[in-house]
Amino acid sequence: MSQVLVRGPQDDIVAAPPSPPPLGITAWCARIAQSRGFEITIMGAIAANAVLLGLETYPSLRSSAWLNALEWLFRALFIAEITVRLLSYGRRPQDFFRSGWNVFDLAVVAAAFIPGLHGDSAILRVVRIARVVRLMRFMPGLRTIVTALLRSLPGVGGFLALAIVTLYVYGMGGWLIFAEHQPEQYGTIGRAVLTLFVLLSLENLPDLIEQGIAISPWTLVYYISYVLITANLLVNILVGVIINSMEEARRLEQEEASGSSEAVETVPVRADPVVINQRLGDLRRLLDELEQDLADRDGGSTRPDREPARG
Amino acid sequence: MSQVLVRGPQDDIVAAPPSPPPLGITAWCARIAQSRGFEITIMGAIAANAVLLGLETYPSLRSSAWLNALEWLFRALFIAEITVRLLSYGRRPQDFFRSGWNVFDLAVVAAAFIPGLHGDSAILRVVRIARVVRLMRFMPGLRTIVTALLRSLPGVGGFLALAIVTLYVYGMGGWLIFAEHQPEQYGTIGRAVLTLFVLLSLENLPDLIEQGIAISPWTLVYYISYVLITANLLVNILVGVIINSMEEARRLEQEEASGSSEAVETVPVRADPVVINQRLGDLRRLLDELEQDLADRDGGSTRPDREPARG
Amino acid sequence: MSQVLVRGPQDDIVAAPPSPPPLGITAWCARIAQSRGFEITIMGAIAANAVLLGLETYPSLRSSAWLNALEWLFRALFIAEITVRLLSYGRRPQDFFRSGWNVFDLAVVAAAFIPGLHGDSAILRVVRIARVVRLMRFMPGLRTIVTALLRSLPGVGGFLALAIVTLYVYGMGGWLIFAEHQPEQYGTIGRAVLTLFVLLSLENLPDLIEQGIAISPWTLVYYISYVLITANLLVNILVGVIINSMEEARRLEQEEASGSSEAVETVPVRADPVVINQRLGDLRRLLDELEQDLADRDGGSTRPDREPARG
Amino acid sequence: MSQVLVRGPQDDIVAAPPSPPPLGITAWCARIAQSRGFEITIMGAIAANAVLLGLETYPSLRSSAWLNALEWLFRALFIAEITVRLLSYGRRPQDFFRSGWNVFDLAVVAAAFIPGLHGDSAILRVVRIARVVRLMRFMPGLRTIVTALLRSLPGVGGFLALAIVTLYVYGMGGWLIFAEHQPEQYGTIGRAVLTLFVLLSLENLPDLIEQGIAISPWTLVYYISYVLITANLLVNILVGVIINSMEEARRLEQEEASGSSEAVETVPVRADPVVINQRLGDLRRLLDELEQDLADRDGGSTRPDREPARG
Repeated sequence: MSQVLVRGPQDDIVAAPPSPPPLGITAWCARIAQSRGFEITIMGAIAANAVLLGLETYPSLRSSAWLNALEWLFRALFIAEITVRLLSYGRRPQDFFRSGWNVFDLAVVAAAFIPGLHGDSAILRVVRIARVVRLMRFMPGLRTIVTALLRSLPGVGGFLALAIVTLYVYGMGGWLIFAEHQPEQYGTIGRAVLTLFVLLSLENLPDLIEQGIAISPWTLVYYISYVLITANLLVNILVGVIINSMEEARRLEQEEASGSSEAVETVPVRADPVVINQRLGDLRRLLDELEQDLADRDGGSTRPDREPARG
Repeated sequence: MSQVLVRGPQDDIVAAPPSPPPLGITAWCARIAQSRGFEITIMGAIAANAVLLGLETYPSLRSSAWLNALEWLFRALFIAEITVRLLSYGRRPQDFFRSGWNVFDLAVVAAAFIPGLHGDSAILRVVRIARVVRLMRFMPGLRTIVTALLRSLPGVGGFLALAIVTLYVYGMGGWLIFAEHQPEQYGTIGRAVLTLFVLLSLENLPDLIEQGIAISPWTLVYYISYVLITANLLVNILVGVIINSMEEARRLEQEEASGSSEAVETVPVRADPVVINQRLGDLRRLLDELEQDLADRDGGSTRPDREPARG
Repeated sequence: MSQVLVRGPQDDIVAAPPSPPPLGITAWCARIAQSRGFEITIMGAIAANAVLLGLETYPSLRSSAWLNALEWLFRALFIAEITVRLLSYGRRPQDFFRSGWNVFDLAVVAAAFIPGLHGDSAILRVVRIARVVRLMRFMPGLRTIVTALLRSLPGVGGFLALAIVTLYVYGMGGWLIFAEHQPEQYGTIGRAVLTLFVLLSLENLPDLIEQGIAISPWTLVYYISYVLITANLLVNILVGVIINSMEEARRLEQEEASGSSEAVETVPVRADPVVINQRLGDLRRLLDELEQDLADRDGGSTRPDREPARG
Repeated sequence: MSQVLVRGPQDDIVAAPPSPPPLGITAWCARIAQSRGFEITIMGAIAANAVLLGLETYPSLRSSAWLNALEWLFRALFIAEITVRLLSYGRRPQDFFRSGWNVFDLAVVAAAFIPGLHGDSAILRVVRIARVVRLMRFMPGLRTIVTALLRSLPGVGGFLALAIVTLYVYGMGGWLIFAEHQPEQYGTIGRAVLTLFVLLSLENLPDLIEQGIAISPWTLVYYISYVLITANLLVNILVGVIINSMEEARRLEQEEASGSSEAVETVPVRADPVVINQRLGDLRRLLDELEQDLADRDGGSTRPDREPARG
């Protein structure tokens, strides 16, 4: 990291002397804002700030003077960061607000200066913890996950709705059966659905089955069918579908990253067996025609020993 | 949703004036019954009804006047729905009963009017909760899951039977070993199989092993072999086989949905490596013949520098 | 099942009149032993016997007269089954003992007649429960699983050894750290390995971590590293490898079952991408040669606008 | 194993007479060190030593005379092993230290002779247990796993960072919400992150949710979102990515092991659909050119009945 941090200042030095006229404060800021050194410095600052916040949770370290000083240092750093980002947009500062992350950054950093917030107030703590979330801006994996989750939504949607309806119907059934005997677990639909949600982790299965048998052995039908349908099938299917989408999203990213220029036009976006098969079909038609050409030129008839393999 | 709900009435307005003579009440009902607006209205009504049923589980809300009014509103709505569906079959109302969902709908809606059911009786509650199940009629995911489960049955059947026999044999063994010391868990074959079924979730593993060791260290052989064979292998295999079938069923659906007209004849139903390989084999034979043709025409002998690559 | 049971006797009737001279008792028995009706009758008998054994575990049903009568009926049936199987081998009865299942069947059925075994003795119960295991003889899934497990052994072997060594090393480490404070869990290497085996199910994780922290916070390194390495990685890898082998074994079986005669020589055993790629390489070489032929015949030089695509 | 152990001495006998002059002690040692018999002997010795260490954990067996004698036997054996290995490097003993395993072996074996270590001291025990780790030197699976873990690092890195940031942010949030009511679980950031790490196993989910509801029903949002995001998605994705890399690493190893000489140049390293598709594209271009050749030679124009299939 030190190596890159060294390169950061070097960039600054190179960029600092504004010898060509168009290189004003905007270009200088844009250059900094897009440099890898800037990115890594900010990531490091956020991480260090996160560690600081963690240390403050230990009573022996809380409210010491240097923690407070460091807090102000980080505030100054983050204000500088946002100023650089904002200035890099030059005469179109409104574009700065088009990126959700920029808005989030500004809100999180500015919120610490709201007058009412001081000392140990809960809101100030939330604001400071929210700074740690800014780390996700720099994570390449996050975009993949979000892309994959969005991609998997059409496939997952139906399953998700099915899972919710199943949970709700079992919840209503559980309320009907157990509300009197187990008000703590099944007293209302909310408690019943919560109990069944926790049951997805199978942790309370032995207890619930034991209590259920005390009421009636038929409650086993309720619990066993629920566990088989929901915990085994639906949860696994949902997780499986999402993970498949994730894998595909990652593969697509890798292909995009490693795609050479010549491959762009010949390799289709999805190199799946269907496409390969289609291309094989094309190839075969070409060969058929080619052979026909040769046969025609020779005036030869189609050979009888070759049956059409298409059937 | 409001947008679609608006479209629904629009459809009604367009369809309402029966200007062409053949457009009678049957055509009008059929048009409504197949419109997306109708579908979404009914889905919304069932969902709202489900929420209402959920609210009734809270004692503070139960038996209030407006809940009762809403219940009658939903009843009226569902009767209207079924009437429209029934009328849309025109002079062949018996076809209405060919769809399982139609029969289920009619039964669930009509059951609320059985004379004996009133007030807070348990059967009425079951009937009302059963209405929520009607939501599944509108879920595209459900058909995929059912198709996939049916498709996976031949593959799963053997494993399932094996799992059941394993569970039963271990249950008998457990009864033989533990019946005296742990009558609660292994007193009868039913209890033993239940204990082992719960053990699939591994939740009671530490307790059972502790109690088993108190009897004899050799009971570890029983528990460890059971956990390795059943909880690790069989459960994972069953879930894996079903999920694979599910994935395949979904892919087939997508291919059907996105299949262009020209692809229909060249792309086989299952574009798997075996088929690709077969087509490659065909292609190769064609090439061999083609080359043979060229060689024959030239009167040339087979070239010695090409070894047959088939071996 | 009744349909098949009816077919069974029909087969018998057809086979019964030994009109052609070579059809003696051997051929008659062989024909029965290989008929589907015989197989299903025996499967049904074993299943009914299993249910009977299960019913006997209920004290209210135990030692009733008809249970005893049914037991003797099943014994007679199984003796008849084995007699038919044995006779079907004709003059080479020693071949009967070549099949492991035959030997197991004979042992299990004969053991019930050992003089000392009577009434409620434990060994007799074990022998009778062992009869249920005979159901596995008729399960097609079992062969697949065993084949797959054998196939996956070379791949799994290394991982399994690694898992065992890891468990043992952590067990020794756990004994070193916790033997004094938790003799119940880590008193000897046996107890330590058992504790860590149960920890694979993560059930006792909260308790163990709590007890560990009471000794020293550094025990967290022990538990967290163990859980990450073993419970997350190794268990998932082992299960994954075995399930992959299982899937492949099933696919091979399906291919064998559905393989047409012409496909046998062109489709390789493993239709994986490597083979497909090799065949594409072959195809390409053929095309190159073909083009060379054409070029040679025309006396044309190699065209300069085509770069070799192999690089 | 005995068979191989027998082969080991045979190798020794064959290698022992140093008839050719260059075969000195170095060549003799190198030949032993690389023989399979040597490897298996050492593996067996380490395994036996591991069993010995395990037996010593049983109080009744500890500090008996023959355990001590066996310990000295193993020490002698391991010194002999390292001497042979060291001598096999001949005049370049410094190369011996280039292999990490050699250094580890030497350190582990030599440490037992440090003067201060005697009797039952904890450090000596650690040193002796460390010997068991040497078994991993001989495991082929380990290299695959390490290779796969290294291969999966770029793909996993982003997810891992995301998981850590998520855990940390939830930890800070949990400290903020629960620190007062549950100091044991959320008193400091360390305890909070530990609680959430254990929650990944879902074991403490029912307890935590119950305690959370006692504080406020809104804590459900915290726990349910955490469980869905982390325990379901992130853990499964991480495990899935690593296992995929593992599978690929194993496949590559198998391909390398079974790769014939001719396949080396035509089969690319990764036989994935992208590569296959590229090759199909190449093939197609060749065919197009070939057909063009034929057409040119015939003076024929491009046929109108063939639409370009590229679109």
